[in-house]
Amino acid sequence: MNKPLVGILMGSDSDLGVMKDAAEVLEQFGIGSEVKVLSCHRAPEKVVEYVRDASARGIKVFIGGAGMSAGLPGVIAAHTELPVIGVPLLSASSAAGGLDSILSVMQLPPGIPVAAVALNGAKNAGLLAAQIIGTGDADIRAKIIDYKKKMEKDILAKNEKLEKEGYKKYLEKK
Amino acid sequence: MNKPLVGILMGSDSDLGVMKDAAEVLEQFGIGSEVKVLSCHRAPEKVVEYVRDASARGIKVFIGGAGMSAGLPGVIAAHTELPVIGVPLLSASSAAGGLDSILSVMQLPPGIPVAAVALNGAKNAGLLAAQIIGTGDADIRAKIIDYKKKMEKDILAKNEKLEKEGYKKYLEKK
Amino acid sequence: MNKPLVGILMGSDSDLGVMKDAAEVLEQFGIGSEVKVLSCHRAPEKVVEYVRDASARGIKVFIGGAGMSAGLPGVIAAHTELPVIGVPLLSASSAAGGLDSILSVMQLPPGIPVAAVALNGAKNAGLLAAQIIGTGDADIRAKIIDYKKKMEKDILAKNEKLEKEGYKKYLEKK
Amino acid sequence: MNKPLVGILMGSDSDLGVMKDAAEVLEQFGIGSEVKVLSCHRAPEKVVEYVRDASARGIKVFIGGAGMSAGLPGVIAAHTELPVIGVPLLSASSAAGGLDSILSVMQLPPGIPVAAVALNGAKNAGLLAAQIIGTGDADIRAKIIDYKKKMEKDILAKNEKLEKEGYKKYLEKK
Amino acid sequence: MNKPLVGILMGSDSDLGVMKDAAEVLEQFGIGSEVKVLSCHRAPEKVVEYVRDASARGIKVFIGGAGMSAGLPGVIAAHTELPVIGVPLLSASSAAGGLDSILSVMQLPPGIPVAAVALNGAKNAGLLAAQIIGTGDADIRAKIIDYKKKMEKDILAKNEKLEKEGYKKYLEKK
Amino acid sequence: MNKPLVGILMGSDSDLGVMKDAAEVLEQFGIGSEVKVLSCHRAPEKVVEYVRDASARGIKVFIGGAGMSAGLPGVIAAHTELPVIGVPLLSASSAAGGLDSILSVMQLPPGIPVAAVALNGAKNAGLLAAQIIGTGDADIRAKIIDYKKKMEKDILAKNEKLEKEGYKKYLEKK
Amino acid sequence: MNKPLVGILMGSDSDLGVMKDAAEVLEQFGIGSEVKVLSCHRAPEKVVEYVRDASARGIKVFIGGAGMSAGLPGVIAAHTELPVIGVPLLSASSAAGGLDSILSVMQLPPGIPVAAVALNGAKNAGLLAAQIIGTGDADIRAKIIDYKKKMEKDILAKNEKLEKEGYKKYLEKK
Amino acid sequence: MNKPLVGILMGSDSDLGVMKDAAEVLEQFGIGSEVKVLSCHRAPEKVVEYVRDASARGIKVFIGGAGMSAGLPGVIAAHTELPVIGVPLLSASSAAGGLDSILSVMQLPPGIPVAAVALNGAKNAGLLAAQIIGTGDADIRAKIIDYKKKMEKDILAKNEKLEKEGYKKYLEKK
Repeated sequence: MNKPLVGILMGSDSDLGVMKDAAEVLEQFGIGSEVKVLSCHRAPEKVVEYVRDASARGIKVFIGGAGMSAGLPGVIAAHTELPVIGVPLLSASSAAGGLDSILSVMQLPPGIPVAAVALNGAKNAGLLAAQIIGTGDADIRAKIIDYKKKMEKDILAKNEKLEKEGYKKYLEKK
Repeated sequence: MNKPLVGILMGSDSDLGVMKDAAEVLEQFGIGSEVKVLSCHRAPEKVVEYVRDASARGIKVFIGGAGMSAGLPGVIAAHTELPVIGVPLLSASSAAGGLDSILSVMQLPPGIPVAAVALNGAKNAGLLAAQIIGTGDADIRAKIIDYKKKMEKDILAKNEKLEKEGYKKYLEKK
Repeated sequence: MNKPLVGILMGSDSDLGVMKDAAEVLEQFGIGSEVKVLSCHRAPEKVVEYVRDASARGIKVFIGGAGMSAGLPGVIAAHTELPVIGVPLLSASSAAGGLDSILSVMQLPPGIPVAAVALNGAKNAGLLAAQIIGTGDADIRAKIIDYKKKMEKDILAKNEKLEKEGYKKYLEKK
Repeated sequence: MNKPLVGILMGSDSDLGVMKDAAEVLEQFGIGSEVKVLSCHRAPEKVVEYVRDASARGIKVFIGGAGMSAGLPGVIAAHTELPVIGVPLLSASSAAGGLDSILSVMQLPPGIPVAAVALNGAKNAGLLAAQIIGTGDADIRAKIIDYKKKMEKDILAKNEKLEKEGYKKYLEKK
Repeated sequence: MNKPLVGILMGSDSDLGVMKDAAEVLEQFGIGSEVKVLSCHRAPEKVVEYVRDASARGIKVFIGGAGMSAGLPGVIAAHTELPVIGVPLLSASSAAGGLDSILSVMQLPPGIPVAAVALNGAKNAGLLAAQIIGTGDADIRAKIIDYKKKMEKDILAKNEKLEKEGYKKYLEKK
Repeated sequence: MNKPLVGILMGSDSDLGVMKDAAEVLEQFGIGSEVKVLSCHRAPEKVVEYVRDASARGIKVFIGGAGMSAGLPGVIAAHTELPVIGVPLLSASSAAGGLDSILSVMQLPPGIPVAAVALNGAKNAGLLAAQIIGTGDADIRAKIIDYKKKMEKDILAKNEKLEKEGYKKYLEKK
Repeated sequence: MNKPLVGILMGSDSDLGVMKDAAEVLEQFGIGSEVKVLSCHRAPEKVVEYVRDASARGIKVFIGGAGMSAGLPGVIAAHTELPVIGVPLLSASSAAGGLDSILSVMQLPPGIPVAAVALNGAKNAGLLAAQIIGTGDADIRAKIIDYKKKMEKDILAKNEKLEKEGYKKYLEKK
Repeated sequence: MNKPLVGILMGSDSDLGVMKDAAEVLEQFGIGSEVKVLSCHRAPEKVVEYVRDASARGIKVFIGGAGMSAGLPGVIAAHTELPVIGVPLLSASSAAGGLDSILSVMQLPPGIPVAAVALNGAKNAGLLAAQIIGTGDADIRAKIIDYKKKMEKDILAKNEKLEKEGYKKYLEKK
């Protein structure tokens, strides 16, 4: 396994089903990651300790996923000079259709940036981490270019199929 | 001056104009307080250090005021067993009419309660702190009863004046 | 059973499934509570009567849970000098993903504080009540410290398991 | 002056500038009204006392105006069998562009209706009260018909002027 | 059957499952009603025709239920001098958790009041119509008083049962 | 089949189940359409290429459906002088009950209009496209008039049935 | 002056300051328009009468601007087979930052499309009307192409200036 | 001047007053940047051309600022493999207190990440760009550590002053 370059943290193991997407997409790029369950509210010191230690060990990007009043990404950002990506999570405890975690992750004060992605957007968090690493690694950058080309190819293939079959047949087959 | 029983923290000195209301109302009840500018994002260790130290020195309640992604009350709550009151603040950087700080202060996860008051509700935060202290202090409790009686008397006096003068004259005089 | 120190009110017995969490967590701390179904809209006088009587009998904190235009916590607060915790509740009648009860519970006017917790946050309401009682009771305070330590221990145990097994195996087992 | 048929209540005399519109429009229909400053949070017993007394004295409709967590209309409704009109008010303390008072006034639970009008819609509250009284009073009903005809005539006159002058000239003159 | 005094309109027969509550509660008070499916967007002339005819035939109150951009109550109000109650409806096509119909029903411009009730609040619409009719009918007024007493009795009975059984047993039985 | 006059684009084939309504309603008017799956984020050049080509081939109106940050309609509009209709789509990834796609589709800057329809309103998008084509085609215009008459007839038939059967029987049969 | 092809309606002459942008942009394309102040709530019959008459006289597109519960565009759409553009307007009476008019204009039910543009987007409404007319008029279509080219040229000129001067100097000069 | 590593784009020169903060903070770190006014709606091809060219010339991060339906960051992201930071902007045309641009910038679909910062958070966008560049540049990383230390020092100095003077004197002096 590759040396981990991305630290993926979440506040509860119930977030793992969504947050694993970040680790999986990084794996596709051959980027190692560490996955941690460490709440900034229930185990605050451990979060700080981990962030500092990981920073020293060579982690380059952090991803923090959290729901409700999603403080975790901001707490990570407070303790590191590295870029931090925040994933707002939707759960049964969310208010206003997820606006609580969206605004908590996004509205950080001047001086402490967090890079917020979409609600439950763990996959994009992983991609963004790869893009960040790619700014200093030509191999990764090339892989991202390929990834984007494949996405394009996939949707164009679907479009071609749709054009050939017509939307009625296409929908029936789905 | 009385020994401080309430620790009032805010993330920026631009919050002081609103947050001072908490200190003032506590002063009316003869309750001492400490006012601190200590951002959980810009000076996170100092916040933790203060919270622990204050807790040991005899502080009984914390009040944390913060705007935007208002993490401060939750960070205080993560490091103390004492009750924490959160004041969401409205500023030029607020989103959605203050929903960012309201939801950040209120939507804390299970295990880490924060007592949220209204947007810019620093006065109520002070009163709530007094009520909490009053649960163990008959004098304070009596003062709160008086405070509430005075509020009632004040509004009844206004009502009486309004009844006497009629609303047109009342408005002119205002 | 211990003498009740917390009065837990809700507007309808359909709220009991959520609100029982407050009573249960208080029980863990050895704090007695009373559970009441008393709507401020359907039985307003009874609410007032109960609040006054409870106050005289030695109740120290009230918890009011209510959905929609959640007036109950504010009505309790209007009739007591004790701290009142409000729990906004989500139901099939909620509007805007629970913003109706969130804002009704939280946006009390100056002079009448309510300590709002998260949407459906009855457990946190119970914990906050315990913290308030703990400000005057060293035993309770010690129990809260233990409770927080246990929460930390639990999440660190999960984290350790996750580190050992890796996220793929961890998710499979869940 | 006519015997008052409408009781207009508000939580603070700062609401009077908006709420006076209700009294004024009722006056145009020759319907007497009483204007009161009586907070359901600061003077709850007086509100109840007034509502019962007014009900016995011949008041037919109540109008309650309130901002933030606007409990007043619901409290009035809890203590009377008469129709209650609620006016959500916007102020510097409002959250989310007035959604707090809108949802507090509107989302009353089954059994306790409140007739909500628009944000700051005191004039419409007065008109609605007149319409309600008009269901049992042919004179008032005729006056409402005239009022509506006049509104139509006014806007048609403006439209005619606009057609004659063209929008450029019309705007210059304004 | 009693002569209808209330006209209940809705934009689609898919709304009938909710809107029937208005007719049923009126029936409990012995107040006759007419139930119509008449969209202001799909059959606008018929709505106008009905409103005028009903007004002449002795209808005293209209109730309009509609979802999405809920124009029906406002259209009714534009064509009658009688009070109009609006019921915002929630459906699979709703946006922002029902805010679309809530704001469409409530935010009528000055001069055209609509009495808005809660989201899906058809029962309260029926009660409000009864209260309006009650302002000119002592029998109905007495029945509303009884209705409210019964509501209070019912909740106090539940409360008594809860006190006797304790919340755990009460929940098990439910 | 008729020569296509409307280009219907969507960002993902998971949108096809909703977006097909546009094609179907156009088919009822005898208006041909092309259905494409072409994401402005995953295949941006292909979108531009298609829009230009279609424009040259005689397409008269574009319909773009997209969820989340729904950029597709705006991207189409940036590359054509033809009218563009935008359909905000609701999905499991939506935030705030669909406000994300609603506001993304609607809030285009000055100079680049998009005609936004309701959330998931693909049928109305098709109708609007037909109305636009009808401005230059008397046959289509006549068909729209018929379509509207049929809608009216349908709802009046339902209303008649409801009047005959009463709402109780009507609901049972449904 | 050209024969009017676009009917521009608004509910109040206070909307004219914004709505005039639609007429002005149409004038740039040499398209005549009629500007009317005709509230669907205060002068509903006149709206219907105008819409039918205008339709017969050769109007091809309607633009309806309205604030609050913005019913006007939907009412126009209910009475014509022509395309209707809706402009949600922001005013001092708006709720939730304009969400009331946005959702009222946009969330029309199936069968009655309205083409919604941005909040206060009267200019885009005019452009969209021109684009619709352009689908049957090659001259207008060419003018829209020119208009878009000019917009592009203008922003590229600004960009060039910015590149030459640098942002500091550019901002000083502004 | 340093070779530019960050491309800062915005849709209008009216955004420059806010967006310049990104360039200024980068300058503090000795990181060169390019500032461009290039709307994805008004000059879409130029945006694409610039993004590709800049990417080839050695730009490492893009920052896109946009208001309303803020499509610019997503359009940039669609055409590059580099990380893109999005700044939602608040303006007089914003809806719902800025939720339009917040959700447009943040809710990008899977495959096309954008790193969203706070409303008007251009300074944080600059800092985040510096952090990203810092992952491959020890000098920059050291400067960020210093920047964070300075922020902490500044707030601790304010706190010390506040402790010395007391909040009353502190406020007077401000």
